[in-house]
Amino acid sequence: MENKKANQEETIKQFTIEGRNAVIEAFRAQKPIDRLYILDGCQDGPIMTIKREAKKQNTLVKYVTKERLDQLSPTGKHQGVIANIAAYEYAEVEDLLVRAKEKGEPPFLILLDTIEDPHNLGAIIRTANLAGAHGVIIPKNRAVGLTATVARTSAGALNYTPVAKVTNLTQTIEALKKKGMWFVCADMGGTSMYQLDLKGPIGLVIGNEGEGVSRLVKEACDMVASIPMKGDIDSLNASVAAGVLAFEIVHQRMQ
Amino acid sequence: MENKKANQEETIKQFTIEGRNAVIEAFRAQKPIDRLYILDGCQDGPIMTIKREAKKQNTLVKYVTKERLDQLSPTGKHQGVIANIAAYEYAEVEDLLVRAKEKGEPPFLILLDTIEDPHNLGAIIRTANLAGAHGVIIPKNRAVGLTATVARTSAGALNYTPVAKVTNLTQTIEALKKKGMWFVCADMGGTSMYQLDLKGPIGLVIGNEGEGVSRLVKEACDMVASIPMKGDIDSLNASVAAGVLAFEIVHQRMQ
Repeated sequence: MENKKANQEETIKQFTIEGRNAVIEAFRAQKPIDRLYILDGCQDGPIMTIKREAKKQNTLVKYVTKERLDQLSPTGKHQGVIANIAAYEYAEVEDLLVRAKEKGEPPFLILLDTIEDPHNLGAIIRTANLAGAHGVIIPKNRAVGLTATVARTSAGALNYTPVAKVTNLTQTIEALKKKGMWFVCADMGGTSMYQLDLKGPIGLVIGNEGEGVSRLVKEACDMVASIPMKGDIDSLNASVAAGVLAFEIVHQRMQ
Repeated sequence: MENKKANQEETIKQFTIEGRNAVIEAFRAQKPIDRLYILDGCQDGPIMTIKREAKKQNTLVKYVTKERLDQLSPTGKHQGVIANIAAYEYAEVEDLLVRAKEKGEPPFLILLDTIEDPHNLGAIIRTANLAGAHGVIIPKNRAVGLTATVARTSAGALNYTPVAKVTNLTQTIEALKKKGMWFVCADMGGTSMYQLDLKGPIGLVIGNEGEGVSRLVKEACDMVASIPMKGDIDSLNASVAAGVLAFEIVHQRMQ
Protein backbone atom coordinates (compact mmCIF):
# COMPACT_ATOMS: atom_id res chain seq x y z
CA MET A 1 0.00 0.00 0.00
CA GLU A 2 2.89 2.35 0.71
CA ASN A 3 4.28 1.68 -2.75
CA LYS A 4 0.93 2.41 -4.27
CA LYS A 5 0.88 5.78 -2.57
CA ALA A 6 4.35 6.75 -3.72
CA ASN A 7 3.36 5.74 -7.20
CA GLN A 8 0.27 7.91 -7.09
CA GLU A 9 2.28 10.96 -6.21
CA GLU A 10 4.69 10.34 -9.02
CA THR A 11 1.92 10.23 -11.56
CA ILE A 12 0.48 13.61 -10.58
CA LYS A 13 2.11 15.57 -13.36
CA GLN A 14 2.47 19.31 -13.21
CA PHE A 15 3.62 21.91 -15.63
CA THR A 16 4.45 25.56 -15.30
CA ILE A 17 3.02 28.53 -17.16
CA GLU A 18 4.67 31.92 -16.85
CA GLY A 19 4.10 35.45 -18.03
CA ARG A 20 1.03 37.62 -17.59
CA ASN A 21 -0.90 36.82 -20.75
CA ALA A 22 -0.23 33.09 -20.50
CA VAL A 23 -1.52 32.98 -16.92
CA ILE A 24 -4.61 35.11 -17.74
CA GLU A 25 -5.31 32.77 -20.67
CA ALA A 26 -4.93 29.73 -18.39
CA PHE A 27 -7.57 31.17 -16.03
CA ARG A 28 -9.91 31.96 -18.95
CA ALA A 29 -9.50 28.40 -20.29
CA GLN A 30 -10.31 27.10 -16.76
CA LYS A 31 -7.06 25.17 -16.51
CA PRO A 32 -6.63 23.47 -13.12
CA ILE A 33 -4.19 25.98 -11.58
CA ASP A 34 -2.88 24.50 -8.34
CA ARG A 35 -0.71 27.38 -7.21
CA LEU A 36 0.22 30.87 -8.29
CA TYR A 37 3.48 32.71 -7.53
CA ILE A 38 3.25 36.51 -7.79
CA LEU A 39 6.04 39.06 -7.34
CA ASP A 40 5.45 40.67 -3.94
CA GLY A 41 4.31 44.30 -4.20
CA CYS A 42 3.44 44.09 -7.89
CA GLN A 43 0.17 45.97 -8.50
CA ASP A 44 -0.22 46.84 -12.20
CA GLY A 45 -3.31 46.13 -14.30
CA PRO A 46 -2.59 42.60 -15.62
CA ILE A 47 -1.39 41.43 -12.19
CA MET A 48 -4.55 42.82 -10.57
CA THR A 49 -6.60 40.92 -13.19
CA ILE A 50 -4.72 37.75 -12.29
CA LYS A 51 -5.28 38.34 -8.57
CA ARG A 52 -9.02 38.82 -9.16
CA GLU A 53 -9.24 35.59 -11.17
CA ALA A 54 -7.26 33.76 -8.48
CA LYS A 55 -9.65 35.01 -5.81
CA LYS A 56 -12.71 34.06 -7.88
CA GLN A 57 -11.38 30.54 -8.43
CA ASN A 58 -10.03 30.12 -4.92
CA THR A 59 -6.48 29.55 -6.19
CA LEU A 60 -3.66 29.37 -3.66
CA VAL A 61 -1.45 32.47 -4.15
CA LYS A 62 2.10 32.89 -2.82
CA TYR A 63 3.73 36.31 -2.85
CA VAL A 64 7.46 35.84 -3.41
CA THR A 65 10.65 37.77 -4.15
CA LYS A 66 12.11 38.29 -7.63
CA GLU A 67 14.94 35.90 -6.71
CA ARG A 68 12.47 33.11 -5.91
CA LEU A 69 10.58 33.69 -9.18
CA ASP A 70 13.84 33.56 -11.13
CA GLN A 71 14.62 30.22 -9.43
CA LEU A 72 11.18 28.80 -10.26
CA SER A 73 11.11 30.05 -13.83
CA PRO A 74 12.08 27.59 -16.57
CA THR A 75 12.70 30.37 -19.14
CA GLY A 76 13.48 33.39 -16.98
CA LYS A 77 10.65 35.36 -18.62
CA HIS A 78 8.07 35.22 -15.82
CA GLN A 79 7.05 38.94 -15.85
CA GLY A 80 6.26 38.64 -12.14
CA VAL A 81 3.91 35.65 -12.30
CA ILE A 82 4.21 31.86 -12.49
CA ALA A 83 1.39 29.31 -12.32
CA ASN A 84 1.59 25.60 -11.53
CA ILE A 85 -0.97 23.71 -13.56
CA ALA A 86 -2.03 20.13 -13.06
CA ALA A 87 -1.76 18.17 -16.27
CA TYR A 88 -5.19 16.55 -16.32
CA GLU A 89 -6.41 15.96 -19.83
CA TYR A 90 -9.87 14.93 -20.93
CA ALA A 91 -10.30 11.56 -22.63
CA GLU A 92 -12.57 10.71 -25.56
CA VAL A 93 -15.65 8.53 -24.97
CA GLU A 94 -14.08 5.95 -27.30
CA ASP A 95 -11.03 5.71 -24.95
CA LEU A 96 -13.35 4.63 -22.12
CA LEU A 97 -14.75 1.76 -24.20
CA VAL A 98 -11.25 0.71 -25.25
CA ARG A 99 -10.29 0.51 -21.57
CA ALA A 100 -13.21 -1.85 -20.87
CA LYS A 101 -12.25 -3.99 -23.87
CA GLU A 102 -8.60 -4.18 -22.78
CA LYS A 103 -9.72 -5.40 -19.35
CA GLY A 104 -12.09 -7.91 -20.95
CA GLU A 105 -15.02 -6.45 -19.00
CA PRO A 106 -18.45 -5.23 -20.13
CA PRO A 107 -18.26 -1.40 -20.13
CA PHE A 108 -19.25 0.35 -16.89
CA LEU A 109 -19.41 4.13 -17.22
CA ILE A 110 -20.64 6.84 -14.87
CA LEU A 111 -22.34 9.81 -16.56
CA LEU A 112 -22.95 13.02 -14.66
CA ASP A 113 -25.88 15.19 -15.69
CA THR A 114 -24.41 18.54 -14.64
CA ILE A 115 -22.68 18.11 -11.29
CA GLU A 116 -21.81 21.61 -10.04
CA ASP A 117 -19.88 21.01 -6.82
CA PRO A 118 -16.18 20.18 -7.38
CA HIS A 119 -16.13 18.11 -4.15
CA ASN A 120 -18.92 15.93 -5.52
CA LEU A 121 -17.17 15.52 -8.88
CA GLY A 122 -13.89 14.59 -7.15
CA ALA A 123 -15.61 12.11 -4.82
CA ILE A 124 -17.46 10.52 -7.76
CA ILE A 125 -14.23 10.06 -9.78
CA ARG A 126 -12.76 8.45 -6.63
CA THR A 127 -15.79 6.14 -6.38
CA ALA A 128 -15.64 5.36 -10.12
CA ASN A 129 -12.03 4.23 -9.72
CA LEU A 130 -12.73 1.98 -6.73
CA ALA A 131 -15.91 0.53 -8.22
CA GLY A 132 -13.92 -0.49 -11.30
CA ALA A 133 -15.80 1.84 -13.66
CA HIS A 134 -13.96 2.44 -16.95
CA GLY A 135 -14.48 6.17 -16.94
CA VAL A 136 -16.67 9.17 -16.22
CA ILE A 137 -18.54 11.33 -18.75
CA ILE A 138 -19.42 14.94 -17.97
CA PRO A 139 -21.22 17.58 -20.07
CA LYS A 140 -19.38 20.66 -21.41
CA ASN A 141 -21.92 23.23 -20.26
CA ARG A 142 -23.03 24.37 -16.81
CA ALA A 143 -21.03 21.60 -15.09
CA VAL A 144 -17.80 21.85 -13.11
CA GLY A 145 -14.72 20.66 -15.04
CA LEU A 146 -11.42 19.16 -13.88
CA THR A 147 -10.27 21.89 -11.52
CA ALA A 148 -7.56 21.65 -8.88
CA THR A 149 -10.22 21.05 -6.19
CA VAL A 150 -11.66 18.16 -8.19
CA ALA A 151 -8.19 16.66 -8.58
CA ARG A 152 -7.49 16.97 -4.85
CA THR A 153 -10.89 15.56 -3.80
CA SER A 154 -10.44 12.61 -6.18
CA ALA A 155 -7.53 11.51 -3.92
CA GLY A 156 -5.40 10.51 -6.90
CA ALA A 157 -8.17 8.74 -8.84
CA LEU A 158 -7.97 11.35 -11.61
CA ASN A 159 -4.61 9.85 -12.54
CA TYR A 160 -6.21 6.49 -13.28
CA THR A 161 -9.83 7.01 -14.23
CA PRO A 162 -10.37 8.86 -17.52
CA VAL A 163 -12.94 11.65 -17.74
CA ALA A 164 -14.54 12.55 -21.09
CA LYS A 165 -16.37 15.82 -21.74
CA VAL A 166 -19.25 15.80 -24.23
CA THR A 167 -21.42 18.51 -25.83
CA ASN A 168 -24.74 16.70 -25.50
CA LEU A 169 -25.23 13.99 -22.92
CA THR A 170 -28.48 12.70 -24.48
CA GLN A 171 -26.79 12.23 -27.87
CA THR A 172 -23.86 10.43 -26.23
CA ILE A 173 -26.30 8.07 -24.47
CA GLU A 174 -28.14 7.39 -27.76
CA ALA A 175 -24.85 6.68 -29.56
CA LEU A 176 -23.68 4.31 -26.80
CA LYS A 177 -27.05 2.52 -26.76
CA LYS A 178 -26.46 1.67 -30.45
CA LYS A 179 -23.24 -0.01 -29.33
CA GLY A 180 -25.18 -2.25 -26.96
CA MET A 181 -24.94 -0.32 -23.69
CA TRP A 182 -27.84 0.03 -21.24
CA PHE A 183 -28.45 3.18 -19.23
CA VAL A 184 -29.86 3.50 -15.73
CA CYS A 185 -30.48 6.85 -14.08
CA ALA A 186 -30.88 7.53 -10.39
CA ASP A 187 -34.17 9.16 -9.50
CA MET A 188 -36.98 9.00 -7.00
CA GLY A 189 -40.07 7.02 -7.97
CA GLY A 190 -38.14 4.49 -10.05
CA THR A 191 -37.70 0.76 -9.51
CA SER A 192 -35.78 -0.33 -6.41
CA MET A 193 -32.16 -0.80 -7.48
CA TYR A 194 -32.21 -4.26 -5.90
CA GLN A 195 -34.89 -5.37 -8.37
CA LEU A 196 -33.10 -4.20 -11.52
CA ASP A 197 -30.63 -6.25 -13.58
CA LEU A 198 -27.54 -4.03 -13.66
CA LYS A 199 -25.02 -6.66 -14.77
CA GLY A 200 -24.43 -6.00 -18.49
CA PRO A 201 -22.61 -3.15 -20.29
CA ILE A 202 -24.00 -0.26 -18.27
CA GLY A 203 -23.98 3.51 -17.94
CA LEU A 204 -25.02 4.90 -14.55
CA VAL A 205 -26.44 8.43 -14.81
CA ILE A 206 -26.33 10.72 -11.76
CA GLY A 207 -28.29 13.99 -11.84
CA ASN A 208 -27.60 17.52 -10.72
CA GLU A 209 -27.36 18.27 -6.99
CA GLY A 210 -30.55 20.36 -6.88
CA GLU A 211 -32.61 19.34 -9.88
CA GLY A 212 -31.77 15.68 -10.39
CA VAL A 213 -31.62 14.12 -13.85
CA SER A 214 -32.98 16.35 -16.64
CA ARG A 215 -36.08 15.23 -18.56
CA LEU A 216 -34.40 14.48 -21.89
CA VAL A 217 -31.61 12.47 -20.28
CA LYS A 218 -34.12 10.53 -18.17
CA GLU A 219 -36.17 9.72 -21.28
CA ALA A 220 -33.05 8.43 -23.03
CA CYS A 221 -32.34 6.01 -20.16
CA ASP A 222 -33.58 2.40 -20.21
CA MET A 223 -34.21 2.17 -16.47
CA VAL A 224 -34.82 4.47 -13.51
CA ALA A 225 -33.28 3.14 -10.29
CA SER A 226 -34.22 4.27 -6.79
CA ILE A 227 -32.34 3.80 -3.57
CA PRO A 228 -34.83 2.72 -0.85
CA MET A 229 -35.35 5.79 1.36
CA LYS A 230 -36.62 5.64 4.93
CA GLY A 231 -36.07 9.17 6.17
CA ASP A 232 -37.65 12.59 6.44
CA ILE A 233 -35.68 14.55 3.83
CA ASP A 234 -35.68 14.27 0.05
CA SER A 235 -32.43 12.91 -1.26
CA LEU A 236 -28.89 11.76 -0.60
CA ASN A 237 -25.85 13.87 -1.43
CA ALA A 238 -25.07 13.30 -5.14
CA SER A 239 -21.71 11.63 -4.50
CA VAL A 240 -23.18 9.36 -1.82
CA ALA A 241 -26.03 8.34 -4.18
CA ALA A 242 -23.46 7.65 -6.92
CA GLY A 243 -21.49 5.47 -4.46
CA VAL A 244 -24.49 3.45 -3.29
CA LEU A 245 -25.62 2.77 -6.88
CA ALA A 246 -22.12 2.09 -8.23
CA PHE A 247 -21.53 -0.55 -5.54
CA GLU A 248 -24.92 -2.17 -6.23
CA ILE A 249 -23.60 -2.59 -9.80
CA VAL A 250 -20.33 -4.01 -8.37
CA HIS A 251 -22.34 -6.42 -6.19
CA GLN A 252 -24.47 -7.65 -9.07
CA ARG A 253 -21.38 -8.08 -11.28
CA MET A 254 -19.76 -10.23 -8.56
CA GLN A 255 -22.64 -12.73 -8.65
CA MET B 1 -42.32 16.87 -2.05
CA GLU B 2 -42.70 20.63 -2.18
CA ASN B 3 -44.52 20.54 1.14
CA LYS B 4 -41.77 18.49 2.66
CA LYS B 5 -39.22 21.10 1.60
CA ALA B 6 -41.20 24.01 3.03
CA ASN B 7 -41.56 22.05 6.22
CA GLN B 8 -37.80 21.48 6.40
CA GLU B 9 -37.09 25.18 6.19
CA GLU B 10 -39.59 25.94 8.90
CA THR B 11 -37.92 23.57 11.29
CA ILE B 12 -34.47 25.15 10.94
CA LYS B 13 -34.69 27.21 14.09
CA GLN B 14 -32.45 30.19 14.69
CA PHE B 15 -31.87 32.45 17.61
CA THR B 16 -30.08 35.70 18.05
CA ILE B 17 -27.31 36.59 20.46
CA GLU B 18 -26.25 40.17 20.91
CA GLY B 19 -23.66 42.13 22.81
CA ARG B 20 -19.90 41.70 22.81
CA ASN B 21 -19.44 39.29 25.71
CA ALA B 22 -22.36 37.09 24.67
CA VAL B 23 -20.99 36.75 21.14
CA ILE B 24 -17.42 36.07 22.34
CA GLU B 25 -18.83 33.40 24.69
CA ALA B 26 -20.82 31.85 21.82
CA PHE B 27 -17.61 31.51 19.80
CA ARG B 28 -15.76 30.01 22.80
CA ALA B 29 -18.59 27.49 23.32
CA GLN B 30 -18.36 26.61 19.60
CA LYS B 31 -22.01 27.43 18.97
CA PRO B 32 -22.97 27.08 15.28
CA ILE B 33 -22.93 30.79 14.36
CA ASP B 34 -24.46 31.17 10.90
CA ARG B 35 -24.00 34.88 10.44
CA LEU B 36 -22.50 37.83 12.26
CA TYR B 37 -23.58 41.48 11.96
CA ILE B 38 -20.95 44.01 13.02
CA LEU B 39 -21.26 47.79 13.15
CA ASP B 40 -19.31 49.13 10.18
CA GLY B 41 -16.11 50.94 11.19
CA CYS B 42 -16.09 49.58 14.74
CA GLN B 43 -12.52 48.62 15.70
CA ASP B 44 -12.16 48.37 19.49
CA GLY B 45 -10.63 45.42 21.36
CA PRO B 46 -13.66 43.15 21.91
CA ILE B 47 -14.89 43.70 18.32
CA MET B 48 -11.39 42.83 17.00
CA THR B 49 -11.48 39.62 19.10
CA ILE B 50 -14.86 38.76 17.57
CA LYS B 51 -13.54 39.45 14.05
CA ARG B 52 -10.54 37.17 14.69
CA GLU B 53 -12.80 34.35 15.95
CA ALA B 54 -15.11 34.83 12.97
CA LYS B 55 -12.17 34.55 10.58
CA LYS B 56 -10.82 31.47 12.37
CA GLN B 57 -14.19 29.73 12.18
CA ASN B 58 -14.99 30.95 8.67
CA THR B 59 -18.16 32.71 9.83
CA LEU B 60 -20.02 34.90 7.36
CA VAL B 61 -19.65 38.55 8.53
CA LYS B 62 -21.82 41.47 7.38
CA TYR B 63 -20.77 45.03 8.17
CA VAL B 64 -23.90 47.10 8.68
CA THR B 65 -25.09 50.53 9.86
CA LYS B 66 -26.29 51.30 13.38
CA GLU B 67 -29.84 51.65 12.01
CA ARG B 68 -29.73 48.11 10.58
CA LEU B 69 -28.39 46.70 13.89
CA ASP B 70 -31.17 48.50 15.81
CA GLN B 71 -33.70 46.89 13.44
CA LEU B 72 -32.22 43.42 13.91
CA SER B 73 -31.84 43.68 17.67
CA PRO B 74 -34.54 42.11 19.85
CA THR B 75 -33.51 44.10 22.96
CA GLY B 76 -31.80 47.16 21.48
CA LYS B 77 -28.62 46.37 23.48
CA HIS B 78 -26.46 45.01 20.67
CA GLN B 79 -23.24 46.98 21.49
CA GLY B 80 -22.35 46.87 17.78
CA VAL B 81 -22.61 43.10 17.26
CA ILE B 82 -25.37 40.54 16.64
CA ALA B 83 -24.93 36.82 15.88
CA ASN B 84 -27.44 34.43 14.32
CA ILE B 85 -27.06 31.01 15.85
CA ALA B 86 -28.56 27.78 14.61
CA ALA B 87 -30.43 25.99 17.36
CA TYR B 88 -28.93 22.54 17.01
CA GLU B 89 -28.65 20.72 20.27
CA TYR B 90 -26.82 17.47 20.98
CA ALA B 91 -28.84 14.47 22.07
CA GLU B 92 -27.90 11.83 24.66
CA VAL B 93 -27.01 8.30 23.54
CA GLU B 94 -30.05 7.09 25.49
CA ASP B 95 -32.33 9.31 23.33
CA LEU B 96 -31.15 7.44 20.23
CA LEU B 97 -32.14 4.08 21.72
CA VAL B 98 -35.51 5.46 22.79
CA ARG B 99 -36.13 6.56 19.19
CA ALA B 100 -35.47 3.02 17.94
CA LYS B 101 -37.80 1.60 20.58
CA GLU B 102 -40.56 4.07 19.70
CA LYS B 103 -40.34 3.01 16.07
CA GLY B 104 -40.34 -0.67 17.08
CA GLU B 105 -37.05 -1.25 15.22
CA PRO B 106 -33.76 -2.81 16.34
CA PRO B 107 -31.35 0.11 16.96
CA PHE B 108 -29.25 1.25 14.00
CA LEU B 109 -26.65 3.86 14.94
CA ILE B 110 -23.77 5.40 12.99
CA LEU B 111 -20.65 6.16 15.05
CA LEU B 112 -17.93 8.42 13.66
CA ASP B 113 -14.38 7.88 14.84
CA THR B 114 -13.19 11.48 14.46
CA ILE B 115 -14.56 12.86 11.19
CA GLU B 116 -12.80 16.19 10.60
CA ASP B 117 -14.43 17.57 7.44
CA PRO B 118 -17.77 19.33 8.10
CA HIS B 119 -18.97 18.40 4.59
CA ASN B 120 -18.43 14.73 5.40
CA LEU B 121 -20.24 15.02 8.75
CA GLY B 122 -23.16 16.82 7.10
CA ALA B 123 -23.39 14.25 4.29
CA ILE B 124 -23.26 11.37 6.80
CA ILE B 125 -26.08 12.85 8.91
CA ARG B 126 -28.05 13.17 5.66
CA THR B 127 -27.32 9.52 4.84
CA ALA B 128 -28.19 8.43 8.40
CA ASN B 129 -31.60 10.06 8.04
CA LEU B 130 -32.39 8.45 4.68
CA ALA B 131 -31.08 5.03 5.71
CA GLY B 132 -33.41 5.11 8.70
CA ALA B 133 -30.63 5.16 11.30
CA HIS B 134 -31.81 6.28 14.73
CA GLY B 135 -28.94 8.66 15.32
CA VAL B 136 -25.28 9.53 14.95
CA ILE B 137 -22.61 9.44 17.68
CA ILE B 138 -19.50 11.62 17.46
CA PRO B 139 -16.56 12.01 19.86
CA LYS B 140 -15.98 15.26 21.79
CA ASN B 141 -12.31 15.63 20.93
CA ARG B 142 -10.50 16.31 17.67
CA ALA B 143 -13.69 15.90 15.62
CA VAL B 144 -15.82 18.54 13.91
CA GLY B 145 -19.03 19.37 15.81
CA LEU B 146 -22.40 20.67 14.62
CA THR B 147 -21.30 23.82 12.84
CA ALA B 148 -23.32 25.88 10.39
CA THR B 149 -21.56 24.13 7.47
CA VAL B 150 -22.54 20.73 8.86
CA ALA B 151 -26.15 21.88 9.21
CA ARG B 152 -26.21 23.18 5.64
CA THR B 153 -24.55 20.06 4.16
CA SER B 154 -26.99 17.83 6.03
CA ALA B 155 -29.75 19.32 3.83
CA GLY B 156 -32.18 19.52 6.72
CA ALA B 157 -31.43 16.07 8.17
CA LEU B 158 -30.03 17.66 11.34
CA ASN B 159 -33.59 18.65 12.22
CA TYR B 160 -34.68 15.02 12.29
CA THR B 161 -31.69 12.82 13.08
CA PRO B 162 -30.26 13.28 16.58
CA VAL B 163 -26.50 13.56 17.10
CA ALA B 164 -24.93 12.60 20.43
CA LYS B 165 -21.44 13.68 21.50
CA VAL B 166 -19.47 11.33 23.78
CA THR B 167 -16.17 11.61 25.63
CA ASN B 168 -14.87 8.16 24.83
CA LEU B 169 -16.12 6.26 21.80
CA THR B 170 -14.67 2.91 22.94
CA GLN B 171 -16.46 3.13 26.30
CA THR B 172 -19.72 4.04 24.56
CA ILE B 173 -19.34 0.98 22.31
CA GLU B 174 -18.64 -1.28 25.30
CA ALA B 175 -21.68 0.09 27.17
CA LEU B 176 -23.96 -0.41 24.15
CA LYS B 177 -22.64 -3.95 23.60
CA LYS B 178 -23.86 -4.79 27.11
CA LYS B 179 -27.32 -3.68 25.95
CA GLY B 180 -27.22 -6.21 23.12
CA MET B 181 -25.88 -4.13 20.23
CA TRP B 182 -23.34 -5.38 17.69
CA PHE B 183 -20.66 -3.17 16.20
CA VAL B 184 -19.17 -3.29 12.72
CA CYS B 185 -16.39 -0.98 11.62
CA ALA B 186 -15.40 -0.16 8.06
CA ASP B 187 -11.80 -1.02 7.25
CA MET B 188 -9.65 -2.59 4.58
CA GLY B 189 -8.74 -6.22 5.03
CA GLY B 190 -12.00 -7.13 6.78
CA THR B 191 -14.74 -9.50 5.65
CA SER B 192 -16.70 -8.50 2.55
CA MET B 193 -19.79 -6.62 3.76
CA TYR B 194 -21.94 -8.92 1.62
CA GLN B 195 -20.84 -11.92 3.72
CA LEU B 196 -21.61 -10.40 7.12
CA ASP B 197 -24.92 -10.58 8.96
CA LEU B 198 -25.77 -6.92 9.59
CA LYS B 199 -29.46 -7.35 10.41
CA GLY B 200 -29.69 -7.09 14.24
CA PRO B 201 -29.29 -4.10 16.58
CA ILE B 202 -26.20 -2.59 14.98
CA GLY B 203 -23.70 0.25 15.26
CA LEU B 204 -21.78 1.14 12.09
CA VAL B 205 -18.40 2.73 12.84
CA ILE B 206 -16.78 4.98 10.22
CA GLY B 207 -13.14 6.03 10.69
CA ASN B 208 -11.25 9.26 10.23
CA GLU B 209 -10.68 10.55 6.69
CA GLY B 210 -6.94 10.00 6.73
CA GLU B 211 -6.25 7.40 9.38
CA GLY B 212 -9.36 5.20 9.34
CA VAL B 213 -10.69 3.59 12.51
CA SER B 214 -8.38 3.87 15.53
CA ARG B 215 -6.94 0.68 17.04
CA LEU B 216 -8.91 0.68 20.31
CA VAL B 217 -12.21 1.35 18.57
CA LYS B 218 -11.48 -1.39 16.03
CA GLU B 219 -10.69 -3.86 18.83
CA ALA B 220 -13.99 -3.01 20.52
CA CYS B 221 -15.94 -3.85 17.35
CA ASP B 222 -17.41 -7.32 16.73
CA MET B 223 -16.85 -7.28 12.97
CA VAL B 224 -14.69 -5.53 10.39
CA ALA B 225 -16.52 -4.95 7.10
CA SER B 226 -14.85 -4.18 3.79
CA ILE B 227 -16.35 -2.74 0.65
CA PRO B 228 -15.04 -4.74 -2.34
CA MET B 229 -12.47 -2.47 -4.06
CA LYS B 230 -11.43 -2.84 -7.66
CA GLY B 231 -9.41 0.30 -8.29
CA ASP B 232 -5.94 1.81 -8.11
CA ILE B 233 -6.28 4.10 -5.11
CA ASP B 234 -6.71 3.28 -1.42
CA SER B 235 -10.11 4.23 -0.14
CA LEU B 236 -13.46 5.86 -0.75
CA ASN B 237 -14.37 9.27 0.60
CA ALA B 238 -15.58 8.77 4.22
CA SER B 239 -19.15 9.89 3.52
CA VAL B 240 -19.38 7.69 0.41
CA ALA B 241 -18.09 4.66 2.39
CA ALA B 242 -20.64 5.42 5.13
CA GLY B 243 -23.38 5.54 2.48
CA VAL B 244 -22.42 2.26 0.81
CA LEU B 245 -22.26 0.43 4.16
CA ALA B 246 -25.41 2.04 5.59
CA PHE B 247 -27.41 0.94 2.54
CA GLU B 248 -26.02 -2.60 2.76
CA ILE B 249 -27.50 -2.62 6.27
CA VAL B 250 -30.79 -1.25 4.85
CA HIS B 251 -30.74 -3.98 2.17
CA GLN B 252 -30.16 -6.77 4.69
CA ARG B 253 -32.89 -5.40 6.98
CA MET B 254 -35.35 -5.44 4.05
CA GLN B 255 -34.89 -9.18 3.55
